[in-house]
Amino acid sequence: MAYFPDVEKVTYEGRQSRNPLAFKYYNPTEIVAGKTMAEHLRFAVSYWHTFTLTGTDPFGQPTMVRPWDGFSGLDLAKKRVEAAFEFFDKLGVAYFCFHDRDIAPEGDTLRETNRNLDIIVSMIKDYMTTSAKKLLWNTQNMFSHPRFVHGAATSPNADVFAYSAAQVKKGLEVALELEAENYVFWGGREGYETLLNTNLQLELDNLARLLKMACDYADEIGFKGQLLVEPKPKEPTKHQYDFDAATTIAFLQRYGLSDRFKLNVEANHASLAGHTFDHELAVSRVNGMLGSVDANQGDALLGWDTDEFPTDLYSTTLAMVQILKNGGLHSGGLNFDAKVRRGSMTPLDLFYGHIVGMDSFARGLKVAARLIEDAVFDDVITERYASYQRGIGADIVSGKSTLKSLEEYILDKQVTVQESGRQEFLLAKLNQYLLEVE
Amino acid sequence: MAYFPDVEKVTYEGRQSRNPLAFKYYNPTEIVAGKTMAEHLRFAVSYWHTFTLTGTDPFGQPTMVRPWDGFSGLDLAKKRVEAAFEFFDKLGVAYFCFHDRDIAPEGDTLRETNRNLDIIVSMIKDYMTTSAKKLLWNTQNMFSHPRFVHGAATSPNADVFAYSAAQVKKGLEVALELEAENYVFWGGREGYETLLNTNLQLELDNLARLLKMACDYADEIGFKGQLLVEPKPKEPTKHQYDFDAATTIAFLQRYGLSDRFKLNVEANHASLAGHTFDHELAVSRVNGMLGSVDANQGDALLGWDTDEFPTDLYSTTLAMVQILKNGGLHSGGLNFDAKVRRGSMTPLDLFYGHIVGMDSFARGLKVAARLIEDAVFDDVITERYASYQRGIGADIVSGKSTLKSLEEYILDKQVTVQESGRQEFLLAKLNQYLLEVE
Amino acid sequence: MAYFPDVEKVTYEGRQSRNPLAFKYYNPTEIVAGKTMAEHLRFAVSYWHTFTLTGTDPFGQPTMVRPWDGFSGLDLAKKRVEAAFEFFDKLGVAYFCFHDRDIAPEGDTLRETNRNLDIIVSMIKDYMTTSAKKLLWNTQNMFSHPRFVHGAATSPNADVFAYSAAQVKKGLEVALELEAENYVFWGGREGYETLLNTNLQLELDNLARLLKMACDYADEIGFKGQLLVEPKPKEPTKHQYDFDAATTIAFLQRYGLSDRFKLNVEANHASLAGHTFDHELAVSRVNGMLGSVDANQGDALLGWDTDEFPTDLYSTTLAMVQILKNGGLHSGGLNFDAKVRRGSMTPLDLFYGHIVGMDSFARGLKVAARLIEDAVFDDVITERYASYQRGIGADIVSGKSTLKSLEEYILDKQVTVQESGRQEFLLAKLNQYLLEVE
Amino acid sequence: MAYFPDVEKVTYEGRQSRNPLAFKYYNPTEIVAGKTMAEHLRFAVSYWHTFTLTGTDPFGQPTMVRPWDGFSGLDLAKKRVEAAFEFFDKLGVAYFCFHDRDIAPEGDTLRETNRNLDIIVSMIKDYMTTSAKKLLWNTQNMFSHPRFVHGAATSPNADVFAYSAAQVKKGLEVALELEAENYVFWGGREGYETLLNTNLQLELDNLARLLKMACDYADEIGFKGQLLVEPKPKEPTKHQYDFDAATTIAFLQRYGLSDRFKLNVEANHASLAGHTFDHELAVSRVNGMLGSVDANQGDALLGWDTDEFPTDLYSTTLAMVQILKNGGLHSGGLNFDAKVRRGSMTPLDLFYGHIVGMDSFARGLKVAARLIEDAVFDDVITERYASYQRGIGADIVSGKSTLKSLEEYILDKQVTVQESGRQEFLLAKLNQYLLEVE
Ligand SMILES: [Co+2]
Ligand SMILES: [Co+2]
Ligand SMILES: [Co+2]
Ligand SMILES: [Co+2]
Ligand SMILES: [Co+2]
Ligand SMILES: [Co+2]
Ligand SMILES: [Co+2]
Ligand SMILES: [Co+2]
Repeated sequence: MAYFPDVEKVTYEGRQSRNPLAFKYYNPTEIVAGKTMAEHLRFAVSYWHTFTLTGTDPFGQPTMVRPWDGFSGLDLAKKRVEAAFEFFDKLGVAYFCFHDRDIAPEGDTLRETNRNLDIIVSMIKDYMTTSAKKLLWNTQNMFSHPRFVHGAATSPNADVFAYSAAQVKKGLEVALELEAENYVFWGGREGYETLLNTNLQLELDNLARLLKMACDYADEIGFKGQLLVEPKPKEPTKHQYDFDAATTIAFLQRYGLSDRFKLNVEANHASLAGHTFDHELAVSRVNGMLGSVDANQGDALLGWDTDEFPTDLYSTTLAMVQILKNGGLHSGGLNFDAKVRRGSMTPLDLFYGHIVGMDSFARGLKVAARLIEDAVFDDVITERYASYQRGIGADIVSGKSTLKSLEEYILDKQVTVQESGRQEFLLAKLNQYLLEVE
Repeated sequence: MAYFPDVEKVTYEGRQSRNPLAFKYYNPTEIVAGKTMAEHLRFAVSYWHTFTLTGTDPFGQPTMVRPWDGFSGLDLAKKRVEAAFEFFDKLGVAYFCFHDRDIAPEGDTLRETNRNLDIIVSMIKDYMTTSAKKLLWNTQNMFSHPRFVHGAATSPNADVFAYSAAQVKKGLEVALELEAENYVFWGGREGYETLLNTNLQLELDNLARLLKMACDYADEIGFKGQLLVEPKPKEPTKHQYDFDAATTIAFLQRYGLSDRFKLNVEANHASLAGHTFDHELAVSRVNGMLGSVDANQGDALLGWDTDEFPTDLYSTTLAMVQILKNGGLHSGGLNFDAKVRRGSMTPLDLFYGHIVGMDSFARGLKVAARLIEDAVFDDVITERYASYQRGIGADIVSGKSTLKSLEEYILDKQVTVQESGRQEFLLAKLNQYLLEVE
Repeated sequence: MAYFPDVEKVTYEGRQSRNPLAFKYYNPTEIVAGKTMAEHLRFAVSYWHTFTLTGTDPFGQPTMVRPWDGFSGLDLAKKRVEAAFEFFDKLGVAYFCFHDRDIAPEGDTLRETNRNLDIIVSMIKDYMTTSAKKLLWNTQNMFSHPRFVHGAATSPNADVFAYSAAQVKKGLEVALELEAENYVFWGGREGYETLLNTNLQLELDNLARLLKMACDYADEIGFKGQLLVEPKPKEPTKHQYDFDAATTIAFLQRYGLSDRFKLNVEANHASLAGHTFDHELAVSRVNGMLGSVDANQGDALLGWDTDEFPTDLYSTTLAMVQILKNGGLHSGGLNFDAKVRRGSMTPLDLFYGHIVGMDSFARGLKVAARLIEDAVFDDVITERYASYQRGIGADIVSGKSTLKSLEEYILDKQVTVQESGRQEFLLAKLNQYLLEVE
Repeated sequence: MAYFPDVEKVTYEGRQSRNPLAFKYYNPTEIVAGKTMAEHLRFAVSYWHTFTLTGTDPFGQPTMVRPWDGFSGLDLAKKRVEAAFEFFDKLGVAYFCFHDRDIAPEGDTLRETNRNLDIIVSMIKDYMTTSAKKLLWNTQNMFSHPRFVHGAATSPNADVFAYSAAQVKKGLEVALELEAENYVFWGGREGYETLLNTNLQLELDNLARLLKMACDYADEIGFKGQLLVEPKPKEPTKHQYDFDAATTIAFLQRYGLSDRFKLNVEANHASLAGHTFDHELAVSRVNGMLGSVDANQGDALLGWDTDEFPTDLYSTTLAMVQILKNGGLHSGGLNFDAKVRRGSMTPLDLFYGHIVGMDSFARGLKVAARLIEDAVFDDVITERYASYQRGIGADIVSGKSTLKSLEEYILDKQVTVQESGRQEFLLAKLNQYLLEVE
């Protein structure tokens, strides 16, 4: 059966194509900077936004029209798996990602829930075998059920912690079973609403305890995928503990976990935290913590996580600059943590959303690769910091200098005129590359 | 000579006083929670906002009318010292804070500048001796002069780093000379505008290098005050490196500096970073990093550092809760990094600003002390997390649990109904205490 | 049957009461500025937040535990009515507000839906008769159903416009039947997501067309209540047409509707638009458009409509200043468009939320009344603008002046030193009144 | 003498040029949609950012290095005029804009100030004659001098109102003398900091009074240029009266001024008000109020008016769509109310800033023109709203429908499934046009 009968395999037709169901920029086999586009970009479809989203928002009921409408329970779950692999195939995307609760319904107890999960995991495994699709990462949903209303690992209720621990255990087992390349922790409701009722110290300790137990269990079962934490501020809990990359790094360092985890950096979470996407990628990169990417975009005028498909070519280009400088994402990839707008309710819109996202990152990749190859910015940077490669600058960098030696050097020297940072010039270059790179 | 002839010593007159030049809540000798108000609050006047501010803004010229108008150079600097100690005395504030460039004019070279500085430091020292006023902290201004346009320790120009190092050296010597209880690093322009022209790794390394040199030199000269870093986001540089408490802690941890530094937490910097004031205080506190406080407030509708005098009693009360839980600020204090509005241009307004700030923190202290004494929130918290003191919860906290043991415990258990967080109830309590504490 | 068996009638016990189910400040029969508190405040319970809210959020399932859980359809609707009037009674609130879809379930066609509505309206009418409770206002929900995904009056689909028109017609009939004192239009999804697919001119014209038809029909059936528009920005549609008070006024003026409508001003909508609550109230007031108030508060750190119960005494005090200066709200009132936090899931929390809201506005009323009685700010204002009551100022105000006459007057005059705006002094006064008014 | 000896005339060299001092997209004589690029774009250099800016910010001293450094008073003013016309000429820009105080220094009285102004105006007039450069608009600076600390027309001091009136009078005379095509009112400090000390009604009335007097005087002297008001929120005064386009329109309507004024819409002011640039342009356009444009861009992460040169091609393209739909800007133009970053301190950076701005709008123009020519979005819109062109929709639009007739039509009809808004599809189109238009 075809779930998306109106769509053939989406192929690359090039820049001038008028076919809305074709790629204009994403040419999977094209070589850019020594690798194919597919190897660089490692796109993943997110199960939740594409197969379980209904289009509700805080003011409205479901709008989405889906080929699996009318089914429920495990039947619904199975239809979605079938549809998903058809979708992956037609779109030509190699990876996918899911939360445990995206793929199978919850039962009365965790035992029952896990039984449901096993049925679907087994079905997915079969599909993976025949389709060569791969699991970029899975994760656990510890925020939707009312038991998590006050947090999961940071719940004031120890039973909720225990439940969360058991859920993570199962998640890691699923990751092992499906050979996930990574395993993600997004701290759904790990945070606090008000300090008036919160034991901040205990909550942070408990969050670290869960992560530590997860490391131990991953070792025990031999799961070799990269463990990732995904920072996010403000939503759904006012003070989310993993506010941004730096906050998450501080937490992991403090609890001795920074060697075991990397970060899954999301564009929209960056903007909610008051940062640019490439800032969060760069902070992660220079800390050796850039693991994977949730490829989406936010709306600068709206104060919540809109999780839009990435279309801003500035954002995708500057992101790809950081990713290329990182030597790629290694076991990570570009997961479309992105949803069609509530008013884009047809199955076709799911394709349009992914196509524009993939094209936008493909264009970003090509522009970024050429910017790096031509050393457009790198030459500026090398020249700008040249004074640290000789004389007093070299002494500073090598650790020879002290406050005293530097005072002696500078005490009678005029230090006034500085070189221009040439921001306007550089932005003009960026625009020209964006438009002109073949 | 009297610089403020219209103002007598400001004294405590109590809650019903109609005298705008009297304290209604700040009674320095009143005992609260075992110490005098003065001992708890350790107020400091900030030299820059009170004695050098002119009232310019990005759209306007100076507005302030000051008794030292008409003087310039070292004469102006000396008038300001005289006025400052009269102001401290009339206000009954024991501490003050300054940047090097607040107190003395810059010369053609650093040697000359330091000579000017020495003259005024010596004058200040004399005044301190006769007045028993103390230096809460001093710091260096490495952001106003055009040489710092691209940063100080993070400048692309090694000579600017050297200049900064020499300035920090002198700053520490002044701190030693004036027996400062702390020494502050606020990363004025330590940050970047755009990654297109920035070597992020080198800049962060250099920032750490300067702090390390400062520690070494403080040891060498025997300066025993607490070293502090003051986080701030976005201003004046778009991506300030010390965005917030967590970011600063991550940086200090990564470079092995977290044992030598604590944080100077500012209310308005918290709000610019998207946090509440008490969040930043609490994060600092649970990390053992709460050193001192810049007591002011921002404007939730404006996107820059308005540095207003603290008047919001919710903010001062919740701040004092954190400070009391920290066992006080130790060598730190409450520095009014606050300025009168541009339209409050008379010397009297300087008094009104400080008086409302001091009264607001005094009221906050009393309410906070009573909230803690009555365990209003602490009892709620203890009960709320009680499950971690027995059974499975105690096992989790003590480190006995594993994912496996917790799965076994929970697999067949229903975990659904949670206790109310009772936020509305707690906010009602807060209001009642705010209004009713005697 | 008692839906809230744990709660007796909530009564005024005074400032020192420790009873969480008593008023500390709201004393309905106490006279303030010539009227009882109840007459001033005209509190209303909002049906949607109190009786239909389930506690879902974009990341989570229902959390609320309610005495009507387990019922559905018209049975559920009836239970809620019974519970509602018990709640109004126990809380001592005289007014309530609802959307059509809050009170009765939707049928397959509008005819069926209206039939359901009639059943519940008739039941409510009976309860109103026996209880003396009154309908402050009703309104229509034209945003939840998927048919309204692209707007109601501003839908690109004319059938949706027609449906909306019919819904408004019924709403006005219900208002007449239940003697509503006002009728509200909140432009749920009247706005646009992107101009790329939007006919802005047609949408605005259509919005005006619906309002015009509503005026005509109100006249036709003899509905005498005040028509109100409630401004709100950004949510649920990115560019809501009724962004704030001024935008709504511009729209009403342009389409000749400003004489028929007033505004229903909500605190949280003010903050989302970048304004203070009292700004929106004052703008409405000086335009003669202040009709009614949605009494809640937002969270300055969160970018969406959190609709919290009002607890900030600054906000309630400054709001009451505007309301008193407006000569009260006339047919309007203070509707608690406020919901308990998702983690406050017990029925008791519904009481706590309303109690703190009522106490906060009661305190605000008393402080505001005294501030006005003592002319604390009015005297400052009168003196500050005194120059417009004589000489050149009087000429300006009376219309005698021209650019020429004013040039002649000022051409050789020094105009420099201005009077202080004394903001810090005034904020100190505000704090003292807030704390000290008996 | 050449002020910019390193720069020749900037010419169009085309998309592949590597010359940073050439246009890549702005080809003034190229025909687009029936007019030359120069005729469409009508670029203007803003005098303040280009010739008087020094590079100060709230934390730092001047950084800019300028060929007129070292001069002062009228000498400085004259040097700037000479440099300005060289700059206009080398850049090939036909228009410029200024505030009165940008071009000549202030004297002790307005009479003296006007005398200075006359000298420079006369010099500018000579340069205009020989160079064929034109004045797009002038305006008055009524916000920098301390006399305007509490506003100009909205000052509490009537003498300040009189001074402002006289300044506007002179400004209109200068406009007449230099044949300005428009005259702008930007309400510098027309707003309030706190209602505690503000007579809101009187201030708004006075603001309208000044505008009315200006209209009368313009008529009297025969100034035919378009009068413009420029909206801006939050800065420098917390509550600026002209918050955004809609607020300004409401004000003009209320005081009967909407026929005499249009709006000068600035991109960065739009973003500070929580809008997109094209929203503000579209709101102005459909109200018949789009007069001219301040072409710049803000920073979505920063909360103040950064006034950056426009480089974002999405913003310039969508702006040009609105401008083309407006039939162009008529007497208005694209004024670069934009400044080089503080770290871009060389004269060359002034050229880079303008070149990237001009190229960005030129590219935007071409893409916008093609989008309109191909009816890319217009076809979607026509189809989307087609139901208003027949049947019930046509009745609604023509005014035939009533609530009753519409109820009758819809009462038994199912109205559920809606068409997709296809936002993702449209954004993909936008990207393709942005990249591919020749
Ligand atoms: Co994500
Ligand atoms: Co997201
Ligand atoms: Co500070
Ligand atoms: Co500050
Ligand atoms: Co509301
Ligand atoms: Co609301
Ligand atoms: Co402008
Ligand atoms: Co601007």
